[in-house]
Amino acid sequence: MPHEAWEQLSQQISELDTLAGIGGLLGWDQQVAMPSGSAGGRAEQSELIGRLYHERLTSPRLGELIEKVAAVTNSTLEQQAAVRNMRRTYRRATCIPSELASRIAKASASGIAAWSEAKNRKDYGLYAESLQANVDLALERATAIDASRHPYDVLLEDYDPGTTVEDLRHMFGVLQKELPSIRQQALERSGPGAFDERFSVSEQLALHQDVIQAVGYDITRGALREAEHPFSCRVGREDVRIATHLHERDLLSGLAATMHELGHALYEQGIPQGPGGSAVFAAPSTGIHESQSRLWENMIGRSRGFYRWLQPLFAKHFPGKNFDPEIVFQCSTRVTSGSIRVFADEISYNLHIILRFEMELALIEKRMTVKEVPAEWAQLSERFLGVRPKDDAEGVLQDAHWAGGAFGYFPSYTLGNLYAASLYAVLGENFSDLEHCVENGDFGSILNLLRERVHCHGHLYETPELLENAVGVRDHVKDLLCYLRERYTTP
Amino acid sequence: MPHEAWEQLSQQISELDTLAGIGGLLGWDQQVAMPSGSAGGRAEQSELIGRLYHERLTSPRLGELIEKVAAVTNSTLEQQAAVRNMRRTYRRATCIPSELASRIAKASASGIAAWSEAKNRKDYGLYAESLQANVDLALERATAIDASRHPYDVLLEDYDPGTTVEDLRHMFGVLQKELPSIRQQALERSGPGAFDERFSVSEQLALHQDVIQAVGYDITRGALREAEHPFSCRVGREDVRIATHLHERDLLSGLAATMHELGHALYEQGIPQGPGGSAVFAAPSTGIHESQSRLWENMIGRSRGFYRWLQPLFAKHFPGKNFDPEIVFQCSTRVTSGSIRVFADEISYNLHIILRFEMELALIEKRMTVKEVPAEWAQLSERFLGVRPKDDAEGVLQDAHWAGGAFGYFPSYTLGNLYAASLYAVLGENFSDLEHCVENGDFGSILNLLRERVHCHGHLYETPELLENAVGVRDHVKDLLCYLRERYTTP
Repeated sequence: MPHEAWEQLSQQISELDTLAGIGGLLGWDQQVAMPSGSAGGRAEQSELIGRLYHERLTSPRLGELIEKVAAVTNSTLEQQAAVRNMRRTYRRATCIPSELASRIAKASASGIAAWSEAKNRKDYGLYAESLQANVDLALERATAIDASRHPYDVLLEDYDPGTTVEDLRHMFGVLQKELPSIRQQALERSGPGAFDERFSVSEQLALHQDVIQAVGYDITRGALREAEHPFSCRVGREDVRIATHLHERDLLSGLAATMHELGHALYEQGIPQGPGGSAVFAAPSTGIHESQSRLWENMIGRSRGFYRWLQPLFAKHFPGKNFDPEIVFQCSTRVTSGSIRVFADEISYNLHIILRFEMELALIEKRMTVKEVPAEWAQLSERFLGVRPKDDAEGVLQDAHWAGGAFGYFPSYTLGNLYAASLYAVLGENFSDLEHCVENGDFGSILNLLRERVHCHGHLYETPELLENAVGVRDHVKDLLCYLRERYTTP
Repeated sequence: MPHEAWEQLSQQISELDTLAGIGGLLGWDQQVAMPSGSAGGRAEQSELIGRLYHERLTSPRLGELIEKVAAVTNSTLEQQAAVRNMRRTYRRATCIPSELASRIAKASASGIAAWSEAKNRKDYGLYAESLQANVDLALERATAIDASRHPYDVLLEDYDPGTTVEDLRHMFGVLQKELPSIRQQALERSGPGAFDERFSVSEQLALHQDVIQAVGYDITRGALREAEHPFSCRVGREDVRIATHLHERDLLSGLAATMHELGHALYEQGIPQGPGGSAVFAAPSTGIHESQSRLWENMIGRSRGFYRWLQPLFAKHFPGKNFDPEIVFQCSTRVTSGSIRVFADEISYNLHIILRFEMELALIEKRMTVKEVPAEWAQLSERFLGVRPKDDAEGVLQDAHWAGGAFGYFPSYTLGNLYAASLYAVLGENFSDLEHCVENGDFGSILNLLRERVHCHGHLYETPELLENAVGVRDHVKDLLCYLRERYTTP
């Protein structure tokens, strides 16, 4: 009964998705509304939902259903995708012995604790040992999943299935070669311009509410709130929310945060729903997800056309305050020297990522010990960015990823920039004057193209195929360099 | 291994409580933050959590653990309470065949739908059939639980274990006899006084934030937000939240709503935690819970002393607006004639409840058919309240309780008033000048007494024993009549 197996598999996935949505709500509430004293109880709630999810994901029954559907002849594209995606998810969940899973969870928790302490005291030494433990466990996990492949390739698959060390070496190699000179030209070009008035946070939030809806966010299936850190998250089948972080003295960084999360949320809202749930209808990779956030945050959200469009809306919320689109553009595309990734400009950002990629690859390949990390970090930082971190807190301790055990995540950020650049190039080819289109607030046409080329396909295809369908055969590195040169080096 | 059984039972109850907290968060978010388009997905999430809860609650393993702990000799007070309370909960959940449970759930859902339609069209006829179905199912359920007792006693146990039809008949009989004359005197005394300026909702919310914290609400373990209907709910082990509903033109009804929910929330925050979870540490009855809300909303929250205390806080949030404590007191204790329970004054409210008790008892005892309900309602309303509803929407269709299948709930409201009156009398005996104590904002002393006498005992005792420990042997009816006479008939 192949049809029945598909219905049962869909039902199982649907229940997993329902649990994931509940977990999403627990996380959303935790960051947006939860009182400080409630952390202990919330941790128990999240742990329980995670445990129920894991029990269902690793149940032999699910494995049997996947194989039953796999055996169907004349299966649909959706069924084939569900089998391919669920097989991988199921396998990666079940091939980790529970004893190893438990050690990983503990090392992640104590890694975060050690990192936090080390960062506060600016002392890498307090953290080195737990970093080593996390590196070792990542390797052990990669081996348990597939001992025949490069362990970093196996780890990358957590985020960007289909991308390999070889791909990254090639693309990042060209970027590393080309970006510094673009960066240098942009540094020399950067004008003074300032935009540092005070803007009330509640008025900013009202402005952002208008912006996200004008761009195409469906507020009847989501919400915008403020939180300590920006994020977006799915809290249910038809509910994708955005949390932004606003600064009274920095209107532009808050706007960038909202536009970034908006890109993620528009993607999630644009993915259709149907039998097979998230095994069919979800982003195929972190890199693709990031391409949507980067496209709206940077390519569109930092353009002259966007600020021209924004001017009257800004005036509505901040009557009497000055907003010169050209000055705002200059401010938001200023290139600076700095050690911190999250404050980096669009060009330097990729160099920060390549640095981290080189470092984590060397750790995983055991070409570098944890003891050598700070010196190597400083040296690469000097080479790539022309600046040495003034202490460990501004160096390796600035990111929490490794502390939590996430190796292979960083490349997704630059993959997102690369894919976004190709999508932006295609947008440029499809609209006679894209800048004008943005200036007129015709975001619907842009969003429609993204919906048709990317969102509506969910995870029917893996990233390389999805991308080729979306933009044709293109050199993403060339597209990114071209975009950066145009925006940052032409007057 | 008795100790082990107790640990295991505690663990099972703790997981049930964790699921209940997650269900609480789903409900809270639904009413406070959820976008309109997300209702379908949220229903699935709530259904899943409800199903997981029910599966665990009815598992034979839980039944075995309860009996293992029951067999322990020299058990603690907590263990005895857990056994007594969990046995009842377990039995009431497991003795309903799943086929009957399913019919009840369906009749409840379609009852609410029919009621909503009937209320909109002011046509009881559209609802009568589903009311009959719910009455029949309530009877069937009561019989399945315990065929040897009066079915209404069995239903009452859902809310107020320990209270019987006989108890209610006795107490409500005296109230029904005495209240009308108090009401008549209060009606004649009511002065003009008006307090109907406009007050911005966000300013009101800020005022209420100050009020609840001054009274003793721990904001680090809760939150206050606005919603369409006021409610309070536990969303986690250390997280009890309040939703209020504010009206720009009606400062006093919003304040009453907040004070009411505050009473519930202070109680929940005051119940300790420990092994045995909610089987030991929870309210023993809806009536006791309601006593806490009524005490803060009415006895304290509508007193002259309270408004005198509130005056400077009001002035802080509404500078320039007039707030005369005596006028506010007159407005908030005005007695009026009306058909609607939720708008009723403190005296009439109990007559509304007695009307409903008489009606639902007659339905359950089959002394009245659903066809006779509107005429009987009108007649009792005239007799008790001196007013006939102008249509069905203002009569039997004003409440949703029966539509959802809840019979035996209404009495809890008046039980709450009765218990609150005795607690208030004891407060009066313990503080040389209670009104003065309130006027000085010494809410801590009042809350401490409630904590010691009520909150800290959780469900160690059943309601009658808890009450006797808290207030001694008292006549609650006499206490309520005394309180109402003093507040409403003395100048």
